This record gives sequence, structure tokens and C-alpha cells, in this order.
Amino acid sequence: VTVSEVGEFGVIDRVIDRTRQRDVVLLGPGDDAAVVAANDGRVVASTDMFVEGRHFRRDWSSAHDVGRKAAAASIADITAMGAVPTGLLVGLACPADTPLDWTDGLAEGLDEECRPLGASVVGGDLSRDDHITISVTALGDLQRRKPVTRAGAAAGQVVALAGRLGWSAAGWTVLTRGFRSPRALVEAHLRPSPPYGAGPAAALAGATAMIDVSDGLLADLGHVATASGVAIDVAGAALDVPRSMADAAQALGVDAYRWVLTGGEDHALAATFDAAAALPDGWTVIGRVSAGSGVTVDGEPYDGPSGFDHFAG
Amino acid sequence: VTVSEVGEFGVIDRVIDRTRQRDVVLLGPGDDAAVVAANDGRVVASTDMFVEGRHFRRDWSSAHDVGRKAAAASIADITAMGAVPTGLLVGLACPADTPLDWTDGLAEGLDEECRPLGASVVGGDLSRDDHITISVTALGDLQRRKPVTRAGAAAGQVVALAGRLGWSAAGWTVLTRGFRSPRALVEAHLRPSPPYGAGPAAALAGATAMIDVSDGLLADLGHVATASGVAIDVAGAALDVPRSMADAAQALGVDAYRWVLTGGEDHALAATFDAAAALPDGWTVIGRVSAGSGVTVDGEPYDGPSGFDHFAG
Repeated sequence: VTVSEVGEFGVIDRVIDRTRQRDVVLLGPGDDAAVVAANDGRVVASTDMFVEGRHFRRDWSSAHDVGRKAAAASIADITAMGAVPTGLLVGLACPADTPLDWTDGLAEGLDEECRPLGASVVGGDLSRDDHITISVTALGDLQRRKPVTRAGAAAGQVVALAGRLGWSAAGWTVLTRGFRSPRALVEAHLRPSPPYGAGPAAALAGATAMIDVSDGLLADLGHVATASGVAIDVAGAALDVPRSMADAAQALGVDAYRWVLTGGEDHALAATFDAAAALPDGWTVIGRVSAGSGVTVDGEPYDGPSGFDHFAG
Repeated sequence: VTVSEVGEFGVIDRVIDRTRQRDVVLLGPGDDAAVVAANDGRVVASTDMFVEGRHFRRDWSSAHDVGRKAAAASIADITAMGAVPTGLLVGLACPADTPLDWTDGLAEGLDEECRPLGASVVGGDLSRDDHITISVTALGDLQRRKPVTRAGAAAGQVVALAGRLGWSAAGWTVLTRGFRSPRALVEAHLRPSPPYGAGPAAALAGATAMIDVSDGLLADLGHVATASGVAIDVAGAALDVPRSMADAAQALGVDAYRWVLTGGEDHALAATFDAAAALPDGWTVIGRVSAGSGVTVDGEPYDGPSGFDHFAG
């Protein structure tokens, strides 16, 4: 059974059936717009696009995987401000012959990513296209905290990391070479596990700047350095290269550090803190902030592309 | 100069330069997420997708037109709840050879539609695709009012309309037949003029149900009838068919009433009110609510497709 056989409104009804409205939703899907609680009088919002063939491949990712990953990217942006996610709005453009199983799986994956966070898919839009494009807008609640922007880092502070680096990039390289293992790397690419709770925890612990690592650690620390008007140096030895990643890199003839330093999509969080701050659980110091500009690794410029530009190359 | 020549971040910088952050924006574009005021502790949100070749054609619409129209569709959904728009988040996927003039024009069109309303483009995402797809998520403020849903219509109430019907559909027909005039119809298709203020005004005047007419009057009143568990009858004589539209219909050999009854994209608002209510300026009674189900015109079922389904045909 395909999308065109049940029609636009049939698909929307099935998506609504597969998603749950949780506490902060005052009016869920099915009307012209949703209404979501914004208890402290502000709403945090971020949007991301996912294009078939660029952000995902249907032969690699199940619909459920795509739903989880698309939700994860937007939710991670919300947590990087120190906020908790409340609602997602999802635009879907897809071919008329898209199986209903696929749109069902997408809805279930989106809902599954939201569930442990108390967030909900509150609205969406469906249109037709010759391939699948998904937009996800996430809304969030700062819970009376100040947003943690990219601009608050200051000389003398430490740079800390929560979550994993390079796993998704390693999994992508494995898949592009035609392999399906190591599974842990491939699964990290298909279904990231961002450290969502680490964002609000960092805000509570006094993080001075924070960013979702989606373009790659060096590129994203570069955004913090630019926005804050500081220099950042990363201690290479502080970055974890797990054995499975090192082995895969050797087998594939690539440099595992490049995955770790430049790979995005794991949605780790990087933040800066006063040197005396007690870091919350899950955060590790990986570098230092000083006067100046730019990002270095062990005091040296990194020799290679530092992150992902959708229009580069 | 194309998008790929300045890169992802270059385009984003240009969009930021071309959009203004107005009062309700607490943190605008350039960070992981935006922060927008939600003064009454709630946020209204709606999302729409615009796919090149389906929702717009670059040979018919300028980039500026596309920006205005894409903004209008999401903003109209916000006003249909009785809310005022505050912020837009815009996802753009486009080919690497998209001219920078086009993305500049899009940003300017989005901002122009927001300006008189006090709303702002607060965030976005840019990705690559083989054609242009735009997602627009609008946020809004209910200003302490109850949201006006589709579900509050009751027998004995009147149905009223604000804004125009059929103009966009007529303009589309004109364009598909290879003509560029009557200009008023063509321009209505390229740049809708939704009656934004009529939504909050209707809410203040006690509207019991309201909907943005985006699928066509009969289809959208059908949504109200279903959600409210009522029947709706439209008085054909109450619907305006202006002379230019009647003339164009005759010249093209089509039925102007079909444009009026089933055309979307003008983003008129339809609402129900108690029969004794004083309607705000700009609202006209076009029908009545009674017990039962379904939508009729002058007491008869309408003979023809009642609206637009992206997957029909």
C-alpha cells in the first residue's frame, strides 16, 4: 500500500495514530497549528532539513532510523542552548509510491526519539516530490535558564565535551566502502545517541558557551571561537579513539583522528566552563580557551578540512 | 555568483543580512537555535513545505514571490488560530548552482511578508538538493486568547469569510494556459494577500471555529464540519465572483465558481460565529451551521472535486 492509495489526509491520520501527545502539548496535530506550553514565556526553536541521498539512503537506513535521526538533529540543537525539547513539527515531501510502511516507520521513529524526553510530534505537513525530503523543527523550554549561546567563551576557561565523536563519520565510511560492520560504528551513523541531558546539565553548571557538534568538532569549536572572539586549543590526547574505530580506520586505510576531529552527526555537545567549575556527569575537559582566534590541536593548526560544508567540493 | 561559490555559511550570512530581528526575538539567527518571546506561556506553531515544480515554478515566480508566498502560507495558519505571528524558521534545500540573487531574493521576500506583522525570520537551515525545497515553520502568540480550533462550530451559528477565494486558482489556470494576464489574477497566484489581521479580530469577536482556506473552501469547511460534528451549508450567492474572474473563466472555458469553491492558496479565513455576534470588519456571512454532517452549497452536494489532495490524480 502506498501513500497515494490512502491520500494526503490518510497518511496524516496514520502519523497522528503513531505519535503520542505528552504533557506540554496544549493542542496537538490536526488543526491549522499546534499549541505548546512555553512556561517561562520564551520558546527555543531550530529547524533542519534531511534530503534523501544526501542525509540518508533508504537502502542503508530504515524509515524508523530516519525518523530517529531527523528528530535527533533538531533536538540536539535545542539541548545545546541548555533547553529541553517540547515539540517537533515535521514536513515530509515524498513520492506517490512511497510505501505506507515507510511513512508509518518514520512517524514511529520520530515518536520514539521524543518519548524519553517528554517531547511530542505536534504538527506537520505532507507534500509530494520525486524523492524524500524531511524538515524537522524542534521547540524547547529553557526552564527559566539563560540560553547558552556560542558567544560566551572567555580566555582562561576550559573546553569540555559530552558524547561521542567520529562514530557516525566512521560508520558512514564503512557503509560507503560496502561494509556493514563493525556494527557499533554503522549503527552510530544510522541512529545517533546524542547526550541530550548533558545540555541542560551544562547550563545549570554554568556553561559559558555551548554548541551541538554537527559540522565536526573543529568546525563547531571554530564557530564558538569566532562568536566569542577567542582562541581554542584542543588536547589531542583527551579525545577518545576506541579500539573498534582504530581497527576500522587501519583496515580502511584512513586516519581515525580525522573522523574524531571533523566528523559530525554524533551530536556531541561542546561547551566552555570556568576553569574552577565542577563539570556535570558526562562532561570531560578536552581543551582550553585563550586570547586570540582560531582553533588548534595541541597548539598546531589542523592540517585538513575541518568540517562539513553542504556546498563544498 | 552561485550558492556553491560562497558556501553554506556564506549564504546563511547573506540571509541574516537581509532579514531583520524585531521586538519579540530574544535571540535571532546564528546560534544552534533561536529564542522567541512567548508572552502568555504558550507558543502556536505550524509548518509547511514548498516544493519547486509543485508549489512554485521559477519561470513564473521570482525568488521574492516565493519567499512571500512561503511565508504567507505558514503565517496564515497561525492567524487561523486567532494568534499573531512572531517568528519563522526556514529550511532551504537547493542546487549548488542556485544563483545567490535567488537566495537573496527569497530572504527579502520572507522578510517583507513578516515586516508589517512584526514577525521575523529567526532561524533556518541550508542543504543541497537537485531542486529547491523550502520548509517554513511559523511561531505565534495567542495574546492570552483561547486558540480557535476547527472543532467549535455548533448548529445555529453562521459561517463567515474574510479574504478572497478563487483568485490564486484562477491565476494558476491562466498561467498554465500560457497567459500572463489578467495581471490581478496572476499576481494573486504569485503573491497571496491573506487577511492576517482578520484571524485575531475574529478570535476577539468570539469566533467559535476557524480555518485557513488552503485546500479550497469546501474541503476546508469539510474539515470544520467533521471536527465540529456539524453540517455546513454555503450560500452560493454570498460568494463574490469579480468581473475579471468571470471574464477570464469564460475566455478559458472553465467555471469560475469552481475556482471560488475549490481553489486554495488565497489563504482566506473561514470562521463560525454565534448568529447574534457582531462580525469584525472584513468578515461576511456566507453560510449556516446545522445539525448533521458534510458541506453543501445552497442545500445541495457540490458536484466536483472539493479541494486539493497532493496525492490525488
